[in-house]
Amino acid sequence: MERNEALQIIKKHLPEKRYIHTLGVLDTALQLARKYGSDLGQTELAAIFHDYAKYRPHEEMRRVIVESSLPKQLLDFHPELWHAPVGAILVQRELGIDDEGILNAIKYHTTGRPGMTVLEKVIFLADYIEPNRSFPGVEQVRELAERNLDLAVFQALQNTIIHLVENRVSVYPDTVHTYNDFVKRIFVSQ
Amino acid sequence: MERNEALQIIKKHLPEKRYIHTLGVLDTALQLARKYGSDLGQTELAAIFHDYAKYRPHEEMRRVIVESSLPKQLLDFHPELWHAPVGAILVQRELGIDDEGILNAIKYHTTGRPGMTVLEKVIFLADYIEPNRSFPGVEQVRELAERNLDLAVFQALQNTIIHLVENRVSVYPDTVHTYNDFVKRIFVSQ
Repeated sequence: MERNEALQIIKKHLPEKRYIHTLGVLDTALQLARKYGSDLGQTELAAIFHDYAKYRPHEEMRRVIVESSLPKQLLDFHPELWHAPVGAILVQRELGIDDEGILNAIKYHTTGRPGMTVLEKVIFLADYIEPNRSFPGVEQVRELAERNLDLAVFQALQNTIIHLVENRVSVYPDTVHTYNDFVKRIFVSQ
Repeated sequence: MERNEALQIIKKHLPEKRYIHTLGVLDTALQLARKYGSDLGQTELAAIFHDYAKYRPHEEMRRVIVESSLPKQLLDFHPELWHAPVGAILVQRELGIDDEGILNAIKYHTTGRPGMTVLEKVIFLADYIEPNRSFPGVEQVRELAERNLDLAVFQALQNTIIHLVENRVSVYPDTVHTYNDFVKRIFVSQ
């Protein structure tokens, strides 16, 4: 699928502000792809469609989770966590995108997963640091992203877990599994 | 088993400093038991024996984990996490203590678990706040312990997760499961 066709499709599924965020993710992801070596074509489509399901009604997302092979424990957590895995399924079902690499980058863009691919890290990170993002800690992750993909993703995971716990919000176990995987790989302290 | 007999046994298994910590846990746990209603006899033995396996060689603890029904993923985490579940097994095996309530309070005193009993909370919390403990945040948890058992345990879990993540140390998934369980029970924000 061509970039312009993809952009025309996604535009219909997102409010204006989220479409602008998506363009930021696309731009940032392509920069990261050139630096760290993920495939440009995969990166482009994964970035454009990463929030494909974000504005579906909760009831529709719940149905997709129940009827698919997605883990049912998702339903015990905040609906904010549903759109990434549901998006991967709907992008395949409705747009006919079958590329596993793209689908997994969409599926894991919120939580990551142990053993993330470069493409998955690029989309996860681009979503966190694209220029429209503004929250405590984002600048430090942007700087890390200039020089080390793993350290940047790890710092984003640290920030996310600490932010959730400070605010008494539940933490999806996959986020912690991803964090632990990076601890083991980067710091070998176990 | 009588308190004095139990103290004589545990004294042989711990260095002086850890024995003094254990006496602090015993004293604090009995105060919490009177306030929040866990059985005094169970509380006494669980407090005295909570660190029973702490100074066993790593190799011995590893063997107990491998040969028992304990989750093997423990072996992927820091040995500091092994002594509680291994302790529960050795206290049963070597001292003949069969009381499930006592054994579970020992087993889960480091990580907690979803659906903790009052006794489990009392031992977890006493271990965290006993008078010899001194680290950032402990005073706030002591104050909470005066008026609300759940809020105190929850604050200790928050402190623990944030401390680990800030220091780039892996977080055992059970700690997060326990934290999430308290979020759901206390704050009903899901």
